[in-house]
Amino acid sequence: MIIEFLGGCDEIGREAFLVKDKNTNVLLEYGVELQPNIKLPLLPAVKIDGFFVSHAHLDHSGMVPLIYKFQNPTLYATPATLDLMNLLLEDYIKVAGLTRGFSEYQKYDIAKMNKNFKPCFYNQKFKIGNLVAKLFDASHIPGSASIYISGSKSILYTGDINTISTYLLDYKEINYPEIDCLIMESTYSEREHPDRKIEEKRFIKKIREYENGLVLLPTFAVGRAQELLLMLYSNGIKREIYLDGMAQKASDIILYHKKYINDDRILKKVLKRVNFIRTKKQRDRIIKRGGIVVTTSGMLNGGPIVYYLKKVRNMKNTCLLMTGFQAEGTPGEKLLRTRYFENCESKFKVNIEIQKFDFSAHAGRSGLFKLIKRIAPKKVICVHGENTKKFAVEIREKLEIEAIAPKIGEFVEL
Amino acid sequence: MIIEFLGGCDEIGREAFLVKDKNTNVLLEYGVELQPNIKLPLLPAVKIDGFFVSHAHLDHSGMVPLIYKFQNPTLYATPATLDLMNLLLEDYIKVAGLTRGFSEYQKYDIAKMNKNFKPCFYNQKFKIGNLVAKLFDASHIPGSASIYISGSKSILYTGDINTISTYLLDYKEINYPEIDCLIMESTYSEREHPDRKIEEKRFIKKIREYENGLVLLPTFAVGRAQELLLMLYSNGIKREIYLDGMAQKASDIILYHKKYINDDRILKKVLKRVNFIRTKKQRDRIIKRGGIVVTTSGMLNGGPIVYYLKKVRNMKNTCLLMTGFQAEGTPGEKLLRTRYFENCESKFKVNIEIQKFDFSAHAGRSGLFKLIKRIAPKKVICVHGENTKKFAVEIREKLEIEAIAPKIGEFVEL
Repeated sequence: MIIEFLGGCDEIGREAFLVKDKNTNVLLEYGVELQPNIKLPLLPAVKIDGFFVSHAHLDHSGMVPLIYKFQNPTLYATPATLDLMNLLLEDYIKVAGLTRGFSEYQKYDIAKMNKNFKPCFYNQKFKIGNLVAKLFDASHIPGSASIYISGSKSILYTGDINTISTYLLDYKEINYPEIDCLIMESTYSEREHPDRKIEEKRFIKKIREYENGLVLLPTFAVGRAQELLLMLYSNGIKREIYLDGMAQKASDIILYHKKYINDDRILKKVLKRVNFIRTKKQRDRIIKRGGIVVTTSGMLNGGPIVYYLKKVRNMKNTCLLMTGFQAEGTPGEKLLRTRYFENCESKFKVNIEIQKFDFSAHAGRSGLFKLIKRIAPKKVICVHGENTKKFAVEIREKLEIEAIAPKIGEFVEL
Repeated sequence: MIIEFLGGCDEIGREAFLVKDKNTNVLLEYGVELQPNIKLPLLPAVKIDGFFVSHAHLDHSGMVPLIYKFQNPTLYATPATLDLMNLLLEDYIKVAGLTRGFSEYQKYDIAKMNKNFKPCFYNQKFKIGNLVAKLFDASHIPGSASIYISGSKSILYTGDINTISTYLLDYKEINYPEIDCLIMESTYSEREHPDRKIEEKRFIKKIREYENGLVLLPTFAVGRAQELLLMLYSNGIKREIYLDGMAQKASDIILYHKKYINDDRILKKVLKRVNFIRTKKQRDRIIKRGGIVVTTSGMLNGGPIVYYLKKVRNMKNTCLLMTGFQAEGTPGEKLLRTRYFENCESKFKVNIEIQKFDFSAHAGRSGLFKLIKRIAPKKVICVHGENTKKFAVEIREKLEIEAIAPKIGEFVEL
């Protein structure tokens, strides 16, 4: 079995791994790196027999339609992943066209992708050529999966994975089969998360401080937005909540695929209470009246949050509470560091209170180590991280398991 | 000025360098790696303002049409390069379809490429956005160029370059402008070529040894085939010469672009004398009668040479004289090493005499060092080689010039 690393190794973004075994070629992920600049993975130069996407986030799925410009491989993913991907991919085309003047794929490529989709369900074995595959729940976002492939060797690719329960998703320990090689996400290999309950209390307390003011909650559309809504509801926040931007459609899709989430009845109830915002007029009214705004984008690259921020940057009784990972070089990260918002269009100082909270959907450092220990693979390949090399060294030293951190363009033979 | 390395750094094949300066993006080359497996460069994720191809060989041009699936950048190259590219790219589509079942681009992408072509001529300055560009003769194959780009810094990309005259191409020392950064091909950074005159004598002597037999000369279609024909003619070889495979069309194109070559009248005369072969019947007749066969492909991956070799592998009074670089893992390299021919279809022992000659169209080790010394850049970036890292160390030590050997996916800021 050969694994080629087409992208997403010592970086977060453009995940793409090609598995070649027993005359069968399987592509795991085909993502795009968005932050701070768009970067694409290497194109696979072989006929793909099976194409897997672990979950809908663009760093894992953003270039999937590009493959359908050349080939028609069957796409294996959960139905929730496909629907969420469609939302995010169409948005990618729109944003790419606006910001760069071109997109790597068009809507008809997405249509071709959809035509080749085969729905997959957790814990069900199926065949791809001469290999066997199985998806496991990864508890990262609705529909997210870890991917198991078995041929001359067996591998498990974690995808983005969480090992604790959240409001949106329940975590249950999984009994993985025996694994020769674990391809491991490493997002938080260097950091522990703060205690989630304490973090949540701090968050809710801060929201209550602005009871009569405006609270801006920039967020990723898929997963985090719904988690925040559930968190507000569960903590008895009774104020008006406004949902703006792509998080609206994402919420609808997640509610439709209700079997992936913890308790769809609560989410349904919450979404009924929430006001969906679509126009500038509505936004201006909210800015005047106050309330809680849950809106995209999570790293402040675009979306309605930029409009709000520009308008309220000097407004009293207003705060910005950031709850997601801020990649280096993004407007969100720069704002936290400098208190200046800056994108390609404008730069301004933001004088409202800004706070950062950690409600990550990734396993933290000790969660990752525990997971490796429990799976006990013969070898670990660290990917999807900012310091995968260091993580590999630590795995070798602490767990005495062979571990490597390949680079883009390299390959490994198992 | 930023240079991003999309491919072709510590390897020979998939050359692709993105130059970003003064709000202008220039793509230098977009090649494919064919040996031993197809490998593609990273896709540029920015709008390309100018697209340069140094010469027609597929390791420099093989993925150019792929860019036209997404963008319509103006393509700058010599007219000879464009015509030779068309020949090689159409063949790539055909071979890719036959061997893998798909090609990364189709004929309509080539048509789009042709539509965006702007002919360039040696030593003529022109503007690309906020940058200035100029091509210099690289003496590698007809139409081949080194590419000079000037903006906030000045760079010269050698392309594949030769520093001696051959039968086909005259070498004249070029007065380059002042260069901040030299992007240097490194094909022969570790090897000197044997004396060309002595090598030629050995070659002609060997051909004369098989005066009544069959001499097979597998060769690259573009450049080498014509050089061999001229060499045979200049050494008074009067036997029947057969030209088979893509070298026929390549010869016609080169003759049409006569201003790029040394003496078109001689090539015209030579090509008139040569018999063009198209059918298996003709091939079988030649095998019976004997003669000199100049045919593709140079590394024995495909083309008529495979047919000949299979038929004559045990034939008396027959020899195979290889005159081109044999990349590791190619049938040609394996044959030299093991005396077995092996491709995806068949494997057989070859019992005829096999000899290897060096008529390279690349500067040898000392030629490369001399060139760097003469250009005297502030910095050298070593690309297009199998050991660019070692070459960079040697440049630093021997010439006391800053030198680096980047990897795919990396970038350099000048």
